[in-house]
Amino acid sequence: MILVDGREADGIPADDRGLAYGDGVFETMRAMHGTIPLLDLHLERLQRGLAALGIVAPPSASLTGELGRAAGEVRDGVVKLIVTRGSGGRGYMPGAHQPRRVVLTGALPADLPRWREEGMHVAICTTPLDGPAALAGLKHLNRLPQVLASREFPGRADEGLMRDAQGYVVEGTRTNLFVVAGGQLVTPPAGRGVAGVMRRLVMTLAAAEGLTVREAPLRDADLGGEMFLVNAVLGVCPVAALEDAPRPIGTMTRRLQAAVDQEMERRAC
Amino acid sequence: MILVDGREADGIPADDRGLAYGDGVFETMRAMHGTIPLLDLHLERLQRGLAALGIVAPPSASLTGELGRAAGEVRDGVVKLIVTRGSGGRGYMPGAHQPRRVVLTGALPADLPRWREEGMHVAICTTPLDGPAALAGLKHLNRLPQVLASREFPGRADEGLMRDAQGYVVEGTRTNLFVVAGGQLVTPPAGRGVAGVMRRLVMTLAAAEGLTVREAPLRDADLGGEMFLVNAVLGVCPVAALEDAPRPIGTMTRRLQAAVDQEMERRAC
Repeated sequence: MILVDGREADGIPADDRGLAYGDGVFETMRAMHGTIPLLDLHLERLQRGLAALGIVAPPSASLTGELGRAAGEVRDGVVKLIVTRGSGGRGYMPGAHQPRRVVLTGALPADLPRWREEGMHVAICTTPLDGPAALAGLKHLNRLPQVLASREFPGRADEGLMRDAQGYVVEGTRTNLFVVAGGQLVTPPAGRGVAGVMRRLVMTLAAAEGLTVREAPLRDADLGGEMFLVNAVLGVCPVAALEDAPRPIGTMTRRLQAAVDQEMERRAC
Repeated sequence: MILVDGREADGIPADDRGLAYGDGVFETMRAMHGTIPLLDLHLERLQRGLAALGIVAPPSASLTGELGRAAGEVRDGVVKLIVTRGSGGRGYMPGAHQPRRVVLTGALPADLPRWREEGMHVAICTTPLDGPAALAGLKHLNRLPQVLASREFPGRADEGLMRDAQGYVVEGTRTNLFVVAGGQLVTPPAGRGVAGVMRRLVMTLAAAEGLTVREAPLRDADLGGEMFLVNAVLGVCPVAALEDAPRPIGTMTRRLQAAVDQEMERRAC
């Protein structure tokens, strides 16, 4: 199903600024039992992104109505929301625009059960992840670095880690990274990458379980032991191998995977 | 007029990767007397961009046919071409896609005669211009830095200069920059910004007139004297003021403006 501004449609106008400049933001959401368990966190990040770009937020009731309709149809799957600045304008400079919202549904990745159970094979990409500080943490539509990085590992890995220009590990192309070090959880600060919704949930649940969670810059040398990757669709996936070197799937990973699953079920009911 | 894959249409499919990720490239071309004088240079850069992104190039005959049709209709104006990787795929990782081409027409900027005659008022933006080396020089669809920079100067300037993370001046949000220093032309290397079609033409024409043209990094302190901005639609526009400080419109600027106009007319016949 595709909804454009609330109506079933196949496409969007060719003069949309999302196409022209990537002038917009998006959310990729897990639908479960016909609901979106993390809807509140997604909408909160969406609002932050729209505010940072100076895009007028669509009416909240329209968003929740359309996302609820999509989730009800897909039941268990993926609901994606794109909000662009809308059509037209003279060049890059935004004028007064009517923002446009697009809701799309999709299936869960076929490999998801394997990734969750056996873990993901992870490559380290050379495409750097950079960008203006004003875009830090936002899920905007300028995703060419992730597309280029994803072209580095087809057939040899399930996901790739990206580093910033200073060589610090930021995140996966579509996941946030957690490393277990000395009994603590460490995740890179969201300064360069995406402030992931599942990253936030994991941090909250870990703290609730009495675990220490730190945001700290990570170098390649810090990727030694137990690691896992998270996003809103995948939940918690262990890292089974990093660049062909097997990695242990640890108890901390399984514990947080279970905590997330439980919280998602609780929210979906 | 809008052509999508050669057919008149209003829109593009909502699952296009150009919308989802900015996964594509574009060219903004000047139409003159129903032709596109710099078509060869535009198509050459387009091919470089498609190759860098690993997007299959659309058939050359289709491109020239559709661009010719658009130029014939708009006569004197703007023809924009967008080529995206096409629809779908599982996340960022590209699969086998059918690239999509979109041709749009538009009018010349209303202020163009004033900018060419009296010069542009130019601001210096704080939004930095960065990105992976793999995207250097390409006119790709990830343009949020330019959109953000353009939000810095509405009402107080006609264009804004952008710097990279090291503080070097790269280009305008939609123009390339030339500075006249010691009787020579200096323009920043195209490493961070766009390898502009008009930039290339100006460099060629200047060399043909016996002028020395250098590519060299520029700091704010190098923006002292005569300067001009170029792009394929605007031609050569003098800088009349930089951050409210008037700048002299020099003879070198006028000389190259005339050389470009003459060459455009020659090519349009």
